[in-house]
Amino acid sequence: MAVFASDALSSTAYATQEILVILAVAGTAAFGYAFPISIAIVVLLAIVTISYEQTIHAYPNGGGAYIVSRDNLGQLAAQVAGAALLTDYILTVSVSVSAGLAQVVSAFPTLLEYRVYLAVGMVLLIMLINLRGVRESGIIFSIPTYFFLAMLFLMIIVGYIRYFAGDLNSLIDPPPFEDMGTQTITLFLLLHAFSSGTAALTGVEAISNGVTAFREPRSQNAGRTLLWMAAILGVMFLSITFLSGEIGGVPSEVETIISQLARTIFDGRNLLYIGVIGATTLILFMAANTAFADFPRLSALQASDKFLPRQLAYRGSRLVYSWGIVTLAAAAAIIVVIFQANVSRLIPLYAIGVFLSFTLSQAGMAHRWLKIGRLDEGDEIQEAGSKLRYDPGWVWKMLVNGIGAVCTFIVMMIFAITKFREGAWVVLILIPTLVSIFYAIHKHYLQLADDLSLTDFKPFPVLHNQQVIIPISGVHKGTLKAVGYARSVSNDIKAVFVASEESQTQRVQKRWLKWAQDIELVVIDSPYRELMHPLVTYIEDLAEMKQPDEIITVVVPEFIPSRWWHNLLHMQTATWLRWALRHVPGVVVVDVPYQTD
Amino acid sequence: MAVFASDALSSTAYATQEILVILAVAGTAAFGYAFPISIAIVVLLAIVTISYEQTIHAYPNGGGAYIVSRDNLGQLAAQVAGAALLTDYILTVSVSVSAGLAQVVSAFPTLLEYRVYLAVGMVLLIMLINLRGVRESGIIFSIPTYFFLAMLFLMIIVGYIRYFAGDLNSLIDPPPFEDMGTQTITLFLLLHAFSSGTAALTGVEAISNGVTAFREPRSQNAGRTLLWMAAILGVMFLSITFLSGEIGGVPSEVETIISQLARTIFDGRNLLYIGVIGATTLILFMAANTAFADFPRLSALQASDKFLPRQLAYRGSRLVYSWGIVTLAAAAAIIVVIFQANVSRLIPLYAIGVFLSFTLSQAGMAHRWLKIGRLDEGDEIQEAGSKLRYDPGWVWKMLVNGIGAVCTFIVMMIFAITKFREGAWVVLILIPTLVSIFYAIHKHYLQLADDLSLTDFKPFPVLHNQQVIIPISGVHKGTLKAVGYARSVSNDIKAVFVASEESQTQRVQKRWLKWAQDIELVVIDSPYRELMHPLVTYIEDLAEMKQPDEIITVVVPEFIPSRWWHNLLHMQTATWLRWALRHVPGVVVVDVPYQTD
Repeated sequence: MAVFASDALSSTAYATQEILVILAVAGTAAFGYAFPISIAIVVLLAIVTISYEQTIHAYPNGGGAYIVSRDNLGQLAAQVAGAALLTDYILTVSVSVSAGLAQVVSAFPTLLEYRVYLAVGMVLLIMLINLRGVRESGIIFSIPTYFFLAMLFLMIIVGYIRYFAGDLNSLIDPPPFEDMGTQTITLFLLLHAFSSGTAALTGVEAISNGVTAFREPRSQNAGRTLLWMAAILGVMFLSITFLSGEIGGVPSEVETIISQLARTIFDGRNLLYIGVIGATTLILFMAANTAFADFPRLSALQASDKFLPRQLAYRGSRLVYSWGIVTLAAAAAIIVVIFQANVSRLIPLYAIGVFLSFTLSQAGMAHRWLKIGRLDEGDEIQEAGSKLRYDPGWVWKMLVNGIGAVCTFIVMMIFAITKFREGAWVVLILIPTLVSIFYAIHKHYLQLADDLSLTDFKPFPVLHNQQVIIPISGVHKGTLKAVGYARSVSNDIKAVFVASEESQTQRVQKRWLKWAQDIELVVIDSPYRELMHPLVTYIEDLAEMKQPDEIITVVVPEFIPSRWWHNLLHMQTATWLRWALRHVPGVVVVDVPYQTD
Repeated sequence: MAVFASDALSSTAYATQEILVILAVAGTAAFGYAFPISIAIVVLLAIVTISYEQTIHAYPNGGGAYIVSRDNLGQLAAQVAGAALLTDYILTVSVSVSAGLAQVVSAFPTLLEYRVYLAVGMVLLIMLINLRGVRESGIIFSIPTYFFLAMLFLMIIVGYIRYFAGDLNSLIDPPPFEDMGTQTITLFLLLHAFSSGTAALTGVEAISNGVTAFREPRSQNAGRTLLWMAAILGVMFLSITFLSGEIGGVPSEVETIISQLARTIFDGRNLLYIGVIGATTLILFMAANTAFADFPRLSALQASDKFLPRQLAYRGSRLVYSWGIVTLAAAAAIIVVIFQANVSRLIPLYAIGVFLSFTLSQAGMAHRWLKIGRLDEGDEIQEAGSKLRYDPGWVWKMLVNGIGAVCTFIVMMIFAITKFREGAWVVLILIPTLVSIFYAIHKHYLQLADDLSLTDFKPFPVLHNQQVIIPISGVHKGTLKAVGYARSVSNDIKAVFVASEESQTQRVQKRWLKWAQDIELVVIDSPYRELMHPLVTYIEDLAEMKQPDEIITVVVPEFIPSRWWHNLLHMQTATWLRWALRHVPGVVVVDVPYQTD
């Protein structure tokens, strides 16, 4: 459980607070609504959990929203789910790291002004760890999770004991109270607060993605884990909301609710307090870390379906999807900077993607039960990702997933409407944009495959001659190495020198005669010290005059300096030539490296 | 004159204000010292002008501080001057653009909060204009300069008339007065204010750099222009300071002194006011633009002396030094962001570089006169950059330049001391750092020339065989094009396929047999979807076993998509392979482009 639970459990660190932030505009009196709202959220959690439990049994090889949508609702739904999930993973990193730093700031308030720098640094640190490659070993991951559970339940239990003993104090020195208002309590406000609280549900889907990581019988184990996790999450969330109401906790940018609870229940900022804060911070960073496993895995999947650049489908040197990891970190860091590592400002963007993927995944499952219902008894069909086998309880199961889909869809709509102006509109624009980009990429790959197809292919003319051109900047070992290479390729060789200074030209010509007499040296005048332009024009002219069975190979001598920064001191002629000549057919650029010491 | 004057004249737009900013800490009473300080600055201007007038005659081909120092004081002094000037040009762009936007903000105060964005945008715009290539045509450049002179003198003359008629009003609605203090007036404070005011002298050296642009007799014309420009500059600067004192102008971030003067003298924000503001803004942007001519020219000079990367010495496609222009714009934009486009915060960094180059240039000239004094009468020596001819007046001329050098040196020291804590320390660290970088670059080039030298060179073994490796990702037109190229190079060809999926591998093998039966296809297993690592290892192993007279050519099929952004969707295998194999001797990477439509 420990591996998958960090994302879901960590949301208890901020969900209560985000409900209070919204209620605050109607004054302290409105805080009384936090507990009923939490109960509604826990009911929603129960619905989603039961619905996902069915997904786990149907997809024993792992069924995230992308796969379930693709198999049951088609490509478009899958791409929408993909866009929603990728957005969601990016925001998981931003929100979790920001919330983690909010805990740190609660304990060490002087760090408040460095929050954004620390958050970006943390994102980069997690990125580096992931680029180095982390084994998803249960043991290392389980320590922070169990530590978090132990500390939080200790705090909650002590809290309840003191509450029933009538000994639970009120919050001493409440942190500064921002955005306090005197609005009346409206339905809109309550729904708004409810939307913020649904952040507690994020991460619930993690287990259904990773069923393969469980011991056999996998589906049973994964399903039982999911139920346990949801139960723990529900209890923790309700208890935190309840106790926070009892002590009179206030939402604040400088001190989190968890910190207010811990120091009230444990009577001060002592070792137990530090334990709670440390455990909460740690699990939030772990939650960010899980996104670094999920994002690259999903993008690799989308890339092999040709909806994302294919680089994302390959692993780099340490067996990690480097491109995916770097992309995620860059996006999350940018968002952290834009939103100044402020959780309350990030939340309006967060849960839409989550609920959209919930809805698609459960709608997909409902459709799957419908297909199963159409089968004859005892029938079995193998579909792309999973087995369809007749199940007498299909109507009931379809209803469970269907109700789940409807509920999450309604919540998504409530979220979009109540938080539209605060930032939800960004996501409502972003997801369709991403989907169109995915389709543009897809179209390019299909077009390319078509262009390259060998159906009705007339073989290329056999090449009978290579014209070799060696651009030189002087006569030295590097040049002669390139000349040696050129000789091994062809007898039709010319060297080209771009001349800006008379004295230098004469020197080059004299030395050329000495060292490579048999090869013609063409001198191009360039009085204004241009280099690439005359060279490119010369080669383009040659390319125009060549025969179809000829090819022009440009052999560029290149130094490979021993220190990488020395590369900045060299012209990179080969790279520039290759770029300038990329659209000229029949021209090939080779750089012959000369390794200096 | 118009071409070179913008830099120098534009500094009148902020010099007075910067004096007042410093005096403000001692309260309004201290503003009375602004005029005497301005007189001291004009005296300094006269000394520098006379000294530079001599340089113009000695260096009819253009003698900036870099050339004069190199010819007369040696390489180290030249590099120090180079570092000082490059820093100075960068700051010219930052300061001029920021000051220009301060004028715009004075007229349109709502733009205040977008100041930094606008400033960065302006820097990028000037960069783009310069990358497109601007002809230094006198006509286009002269319009803003003459417009500025006309508007400013109109304002000054009207100001004097109203002053003598006793009709000059006090400033109405003075802008908010920041940093007002009650310190006593100390010598340090006055020297501090004097230092800020020396910003007025920046740009005076421009003419001596560009003597070649004048009509014959060049030196006479250039010299006369310099004297005129200095005279106009002096009169304008003194008048602005004087009138500003009379109307009770206050230094402010939201409204410049020029704006305060213009609306007081012209009785409101009318058309004449807009004319003054517009002309001032324009000339400030022109001043930034001149740095875009000077910086690339100087860096090209330093690059051909092998103290800067050699790319800087060549012109790009539109006959401009693209690298220099981009480097300057990037540096200036970064500085604008760091200092939030605030002129007063930039000034402490600005003038040190200017005065350091003044000092070196004039010390160089003094040394030159000493050398001339040692010649016999009528003798003439040709030195690197200029002719040394005996001159009976050498003692007198040496004294002029010597006094100039001593004065500017003293001013530089005053500047460094009084402004050390405000930012001058940055420059005092930066210039030595730059000089050491220049020498590190120089050392690299000398070392490289030595490594590549053909003295005692034993010819490389003649290459008798090429092993060709073709990494393929599938069998299509691009692959077959690469195969065709490989065949024209060698008979020893292998194709290599990195296999992650069994089904795909079988498909590739079958198609390979159909299309290129005679060439061996090596399949490397990569169960974890790695691509580069297995390929690189395979090639490295081959390279280790090859004979010294063999070379390995890796022929990579590459698509050239028609739209540049499609490149992001391709693996760029050739580029990555080239980078991974750059230190492996005897391996050459060719990409054979296949142009798709």
